[in-house]
Amino acid sequence: MKQLVFILNGPNLNMLGKREPGIYGGDTLEDIEALCRAEAEALGVDIEFRQSNHEGDLVEWVQEAGGRKALVLINPAAYTHTSIALHDALRAAAVTVVEVHISNIHAREPFRHHSYVSSLAKGVICGFGIEGYAMGLRALVKSAQAQ
Amino acid sequence: MKQLVFILNGPNLNMLGKREPGIYGGDTLEDIEALCRAEAEALGVDIEFRQSNHEGDLVEWVQEAGGRKALVLINPAAYTHTSIALHDALRAAAVTVVEVHISNIHAREPFRHHSYVSSLAKGVICGFGIEGYAMGLRALVKSAQAQ
Amino acid sequence: MKQLVFILNGPNLNMLGKREPGIYGGDTLEDIEALCRAEAEALGVDIEFRQSNHEGDLVEWVQEAGGRKALVLINPAAYTHTSIALHDALRAAAVTVVEVHISNIHAREPFRHHSYVSSLAKGVICGFGIEGYAMGLRALVKSAQAQ
Amino acid sequence: MKQLVFILNGPNLNMLGKREPGIYGGDTLEDIEALCRAEAEALGVDIEFRQSNHEGDLVEWVQEAGGRKALVLINPAAYTHTSIALHDALRAAAVTVVEVHISNIHAREPFRHHSYVSSLAKGVICGFGIEGYAMGLRALVKSAQAQ
Amino acid sequence: MKQLVFILNGPNLNMLGKREPGIYGGDTLEDIEALCRAEAEALGVDIEFRQSNHEGDLVEWVQEAGGRKALVLINPAAYTHTSIALHDALRAAAVTVVEVHISNIHAREPFRHHSYVSSLAKGVICGFGIEGYAMGLRALVKSAQAQ
Amino acid sequence: MKQLVFILNGPNLNMLGKREPGIYGGDTLEDIEALCRAEAEALGVDIEFRQSNHEGDLVEWVQEAGGRKALVLINPAAYTHTSIALHDALRAAAVTVVEVHISNIHAREPFRHHSYVSSLAKGVICGFGIEGYAMGLRALVKSAQAQ
Amino acid sequence: MKQLVFILNGPNLNMLGKREPGIYGGDTLEDIEALCRAEAEALGVDIEFRQSNHEGDLVEWVQEAGGRKALVLINPAAYTHTSIALHDALRAAAVTVVEVHISNIHAREPFRHHSYVSSLAKGVICGFGIEGYAMGLRALVKSAQAQ
Amino acid sequence: MKQLVFILNGPNLNMLGKREPGIYGGDTLEDIEALCRAEAEALGVDIEFRQSNHEGDLVEWVQEAGGRKALVLINPAAYTHTSIALHDALRAAAVTVVEVHISNIHAREPFRHHSYVSSLAKGVICGFGIEGYAMGLRALVKSAQAQ
Amino acid sequence: MKQLVFILNGPNLNMLGKREPGIYGGDTLEDIEALCRAEAEALGVDIEFRQSNHEGDLVEWVQEAGGRKALVLINPAAYTHTSIALHDALRAAAVTVVEVHISNIHAREPFRHHSYVSSLAKGVICGFGIEGYAMGLRALVKSAQAQ
Amino acid sequence: MKQLVFILNGPNLNMLGKREPGIYGGDTLEDIEALCRAEAEALGVDIEFRQSNHEGDLVEWVQEAGGRKALVLINPAAYTHTSIALHDALRAAAVTVVEVHISNIHAREPFRHHSYVSSLAKGVICGFGIEGYAMGLRALVKSAQAQ
Amino acid sequence: MKQLVFILNGPNLNMLGKREPGIYGGDTLEDIEALCRAEAEALGVDIEFRQSNHEGDLVEWVQEAGGRKALVLINPAAYTHTSIALHDALRAAAVTVVEVHISNIHAREPFRHHSYVSSLAKGVICGFGIEGYAMGLRALVKSAQAQ
Amino acid sequence: MKQLVFILNGPNLNMLGKREPGIYGGDTLEDIEALCRAEAEALGVDIEFRQSNHEGDLVEWVQEAGGRKALVLINPAAYTHTSIALHDALRAAAVTVVEVHISNIHAREPFRHHSYVSSLAKGVICGFGIEGYAMGLRALVKSAQAQ
Repeated sequence: MKQLVFILNGPNLNMLGKREPGIYGGDTLEDIEALCRAEAEALGVDIEFRQSNHEGDLVEWVQEAGGRKALVLINPAAYTHTSIALHDALRAAAVTVVEVHISNIHAREPFRHHSYVSSLAKGVICGFGIEGYAMGLRALVKSAQAQ
Repeated sequence: MKQLVFILNGPNLNMLGKREPGIYGGDTLEDIEALCRAEAEALGVDIEFRQSNHEGDLVEWVQEAGGRKALVLINPAAYTHTSIALHDALRAAAVTVVEVHISNIHAREPFRHHSYVSSLAKGVICGFGIEGYAMGLRALVKSAQAQ
Repeated sequence: MKQLVFILNGPNLNMLGKREPGIYGGDTLEDIEALCRAEAEALGVDIEFRQSNHEGDLVEWVQEAGGRKALVLINPAAYTHTSIALHDALRAAAVTVVEVHISNIHAREPFRHHSYVSSLAKGVICGFGIEGYAMGLRALVKSAQAQ
Repeated sequence: MKQLVFILNGPNLNMLGKREPGIYGGDTLEDIEALCRAEAEALGVDIEFRQSNHEGDLVEWVQEAGGRKALVLINPAAYTHTSIALHDALRAAAVTVVEVHISNIHAREPFRHHSYVSSLAKGVICGFGIEGYAMGLRALVKSAQAQ
Repeated sequence: MKQLVFILNGPNLNMLGKREPGIYGGDTLEDIEALCRAEAEALGVDIEFRQSNHEGDLVEWVQEAGGRKALVLINPAAYTHTSIALHDALRAAAVTVVEVHISNIHAREPFRHHSYVSSLAKGVICGFGIEGYAMGLRALVKSAQAQ
Repeated sequence: MKQLVFILNGPNLNMLGKREPGIYGGDTLEDIEALCRAEAEALGVDIEFRQSNHEGDLVEWVQEAGGRKALVLINPAAYTHTSIALHDALRAAAVTVVEVHISNIHAREPFRHHSYVSSLAKGVICGFGIEGYAMGLRALVKSAQAQ
Repeated sequence: MKQLVFILNGPNLNMLGKREPGIYGGDTLEDIEALCRAEAEALGVDIEFRQSNHEGDLVEWVQEAGGRKALVLINPAAYTHTSIALHDALRAAAVTVVEVHISNIHAREPFRHHSYVSSLAKGVICGFGIEGYAMGLRALVKSAQAQ
Repeated sequence: MKQLVFILNGPNLNMLGKREPGIYGGDTLEDIEALCRAEAEALGVDIEFRQSNHEGDLVEWVQEAGGRKALVLINPAAYTHTSIALHDALRAAAVTVVEVHISNIHAREPFRHHSYVSSLAKGVICGFGIEGYAMGLRALVKSAQAQ
Repeated sequence: MKQLVFILNGPNLNMLGKREPGIYGGDTLEDIEALCRAEAEALGVDIEFRQSNHEGDLVEWVQEAGGRKALVLINPAAYTHTSIALHDALRAAAVTVVEVHISNIHAREPFRHHSYVSSLAKGVICGFGIEGYAMGLRALVKSAQAQ
Repeated sequence: MKQLVFILNGPNLNMLGKREPGIYGGDTLEDIEALCRAEAEALGVDIEFRQSNHEGDLVEWVQEAGGRKALVLINPAAYTHTSIALHDALRAAAVTVVEVHISNIHAREPFRHHSYVSSLAKGVICGFGIEGYAMGLRALVKSAQAQ
Repeated sequence: MKQLVFILNGPNLNMLGKREPGIYGGDTLEDIEALCRAEAEALGVDIEFRQSNHEGDLVEWVQEAGGRKALVLINPAAYTHTSIALHDALRAAAVTVVEVHISNIHAREPFRHHSYVSSLAKGVICGFGIEGYAMGLRALVKSAQAQ
Repeated sequence: MKQLVFILNGPNLNMLGKREPGIYGGDTLEDIEALCRAEAEALGVDIEFRQSNHEGDLVEWVQEAGGRKALVLINPAAYTHTSIALHDALRAAAVTVVEVHISNIHAREPFRHHSYVSSLAKGVICGFGIEGYAMGLRALVKSAQAQ
């Protein structure tokens, strides 16, 4: 059976490409999904690709990932900085997690500099646009295979 | 076609008039809607009047407003102070936004003094009870017409 | 008619017993419900036992409790520390509230030391595992009867 | 006898329209006065319209307003953020106060985010340009009539 | 031989019932002792019930409790917030500790929100009046028996 | 020649007795002056009794006091907490200074807890109502005579 | 029966006159007692004059003062800044309290700028050397007679 | 027509040379004026040399300077650290500004380390005594000529 | 001519593999260099691979990179958190920069959470062990080619 | 007559060797006393070796040491971090003081990093177990002989 | 023998004119040296003009300056804000120091607002471009001659 | 083979005895070396005695010490407070470390109160002048022999 990877996207990522191209570029969430699917195929893994604007959905998908022994690639967007619920869900889920951000959050407002997710992540990637998803997916799968 | 205005109400505003009259007065959310509908008619605009206790709903309605070229009058209630997701949604939506609060949030607890919405708003009105909605609606429409 | 008590559980408590036994022990949410039902029977009260990972659900259940003159026993989990919406809902609901935590939150990370719920609670119990629910339920009912 | 309203303007507002049009627009203090006089006539109230760059003048005008049972519409400008003397004067004057700012102070430097006046005001309006004076005047008079 | 429990009371608890009934109710320290003795009998344990206004006495009683293999139920009152000496004594004493407060300290002044005892306690109970002692005693004994 | 004492009063003290009797009592500035004149006569000193709402006036009167070898009894009111200019004037004036406050500023808002004057004062008296002026005057004269 | 006044002195005041004359002058605690006894005789009140280096003693003397309907003049010395136990004792004792310090604590180290006693005191006097005791005693008795 | 330079001096500078020679030296404001006049003659510019202890005066002189196309050399003294009104005036005045301090403010109390003027100044000079005025005047004129 | 990439390593990275394998794994700096050289060959770029324990060396190598139109992949190690000099060098060098860390710095001590480099970087990668270098190198080259 | 040295031990040191051997080792207070007596004999000094859990006792022993011209070697334990009374006593006692801690307090909790004693000590020794007492005693005596 | 002046330049100043002309202008370090040499000749002093990117070099040059009785004109660049070593070197060197910055550091990022050098400098000059060096050199020599 | 001890000295210690005798005394680095050599001979150990003003040198010497199985006695001087690089080097080096300071850093400026070295040291000694080196060396060797 193929390794399953949950690729979870937080609030407003459904609007990607329609908003602030100066910060996020012109790519859309569909572009990300296509990129991830191509990468997944190359890596020989299955993916669940989801997006929600609800904190609770992300919490539940992380729980589901844990139950299905999936790996998690997550871009928590705004919930990165405010969601202890997501932190708790990630801690409870016995899976390997990689955190990705499209923009370089460290070069933006101070309230984007702290992440409730990073302390639980295998690694963090930010600033490389949607390419960061492909980088993160490769690293996540590689890391899981090495264990 | 008439200008559309989204009037969005955050958590617990559905309980208005049933709670703490000392702070918020005896008016209900239905009273606010009636007031806004009357004002809208006078101003010649259409309104979408909504309330939710879910952060994600507010995020999505702001996204929808952006897609429909609507103006946004928002009373984010408690999410004013905690929601970066709402901040991001408002920034992404290319619309004019006015923020309104029924009570004077600056005369209340310190955790109500910071707003993640204000920095993106055309203007802010607080402390005038439900009348603030009518004031905000007029100012919002006027401001949009002046552009 | 019997006194009604809402027993509300916040995010990730549906995963209890499947996560971090070092912190929370091996009991599950079903165990908690069974414990509460037994205790409720002994106390002669009815209970509504619910769990959600959505902040908005908790807000609405507290509103419902207020409308049904219920008492509230709440373990807000992660929302303890981040939800002003829950704080507002609890303040608006004219009911007696007891806050319970399975683990001793004061012995954990600093971001778990502040609670937006405590200032509105009759009392707070933490660290006694699921037994804390039974303790809280008894104290809540006793406290309400004494009024 | 008509209701009297003091409309008080703090430091540098005498330079309005001659400075930073990007932030404050091209309107002048004379435009504000004309707007207020027209609005006052419509509302059936008398106004005293004054401006000073001296903290002490503002303190004394607030005292005078108290003595003459006037309402107060105030744009304290820079003294908003530094004057406890103005805070004390407003608290001592047994009148209703509305605070107005031409620009959205919450979208500017952090030192403009705290106001010594807001905690004593009926309501606060900011960001609507000189139109905010007319909004504030109407709300102030309406609020006083409702008492 | 019966299990021994030290029930230790900090400064000013000897004045209970004679002070601030709005916060602490009308019960006295003697009422608490009677409540605890009744509860202890029901639980089949012996108790040492003591009160002191001296930090050093509390430190020494905790040391004594450690030497006699007793459990400790403690209401450190004001020393909760200031005594590192008590923290050190509790850490050194190899016993199970439960912390109890009559009032809800989280709903009072900020300087009462931090406890030097909580991080070492099995659990914490506050806000239930003197009933909290009985709750704490039961939980403490139960917890010790479960080990 | 008699010793001269400047008795300087800061902003809003001209409104004393007309404002907030719950905090400041019903005495007026004229009552204070009468009290001080009687006390001065008994002590055999001359006084200059002044009040201003302007920071600059207080600065200049302190300078004048320095030039006339006067002692200074000062109630800086709101400028206590904000005026470095007054601090500098007091430091430059080679006179003995006593600071007096009618209310107990330490029992009020946190922004009244710091004084730019206290570090330069011989002593500080607060909370004794207008009697504090008589106490301060006596102590100031006595202290100067002892040098 | 004469009014009773407790005059309580905190840690290290028994060493007065033997230490740091640059800060406290050459007067001793015996000089203070003599001054207070003379002043008490003139005022027609009885005094209990005590000193302790133990926080618990001060707490208990305040409790005793409350029980004997005495007024309290207190120089808490170092416990001014660290003792919440003393704060609680003073709040529980239904007596009028005046706080006195020999030196001007506001002109010394920052850790001496906050007092746990001031918020409960009728008034505060500091910087006038031992004469402050006589001032405080007079003001305390006068204040009590005025009630 | 000659270039005009406003040389503005803040509170207490009229007392220079009469106060704290250890910090400011023995030079007087008249010495500064003479030095500036000599330097101005050498540079071929006219000067307006003024001093005030009133924040409002400084605000208005900066406004006047703006209206007369003058350059501004300013020693705001204590208002450096407290006056947002002066900050706003300087920002509105479309002139080049140089800030000068006689003493090295960075080697003094922490409350002198922040300046509301520096962020708007061409440059800042401190610590060189009255010579700093001549240095600042030369640099100001030179800088204006280079534009 | 091939694109040149500077791969710069900060203090203590020369000890890699000889220290704390729990945090950094058993790989050595030589392993990193080999990995980078292989990756560079695949990408068709030349690399300069250097390490220094001296802040000044890193500053100068960044300057050199700027002069040679190189890209920069940097692991600043401890200087990440303390070196404004490195920040300034990176800002001055008109090159694209990627920051890489072997361990997940966000899961370590708080003093490792702030980076003076991140705000200037194209992107940041941390937590993937030495594989992060290869990821960073690919992303850096790809990013430069896309410009 | 031999030089006298007070060796003072703060709270919980009477439990040494019975508590947390991982932090403090297995030595007891009796071992420390024996070590100090042997060292004292070698140095030709007399010692008073005392321990108390009461802050007031330590204050009084320091006062006594001052009166008897003794040197002071002190391990204030928990009172290191909370006792301003001890700070004041040490300042008043005209003796040389050395501070010693058995564990390395800088490697423990942040609340152990500040000492109210260090600023008054000749020197500070921590982390060397009970050997630190011997080191401190030698250094203290040597330092006193050198004066 | 001529007075010697060390003119020391910190990290990245060797890149001046090649970087960020918007902040620093187009002048190079060679231009500064030429300017200083011309100024030195006019003043009749000898100069040592040096630049380093190494903190240790600056420390040693300051030490050397002390040994050679030189004056020091220093632009510590980034080390201004981070180097306690430089602070210590300057304090140890018994020479007069002037600090100069090309840009107005107070108008830049907050981390550039604190200087470890300023508290030891005779005076500070910033914002005047390379002209600041000439100003500083003149003031430094003048100041030394006046001693 | 004899045990090797690295004795490492940070910036400005090469100037010892030539600077600030009030703080550091008249001893020189050569005196320290002589003292250490004598002590080392008595202890039967070899020493490497080095000093550098460069952070990178200290980092590398610590690395070298680790490689040679040496013990480390270090006085990091100013780098104590700023060098995370040194912290990392010490953590990586599997050796026992003792930290020594000539002056009592806790009685000096606040920026000298935190040490990046202490949390990794066996123990810390400060305030005993150069004698502290001998004390530290003995304790270091003794401690290593006891393992």
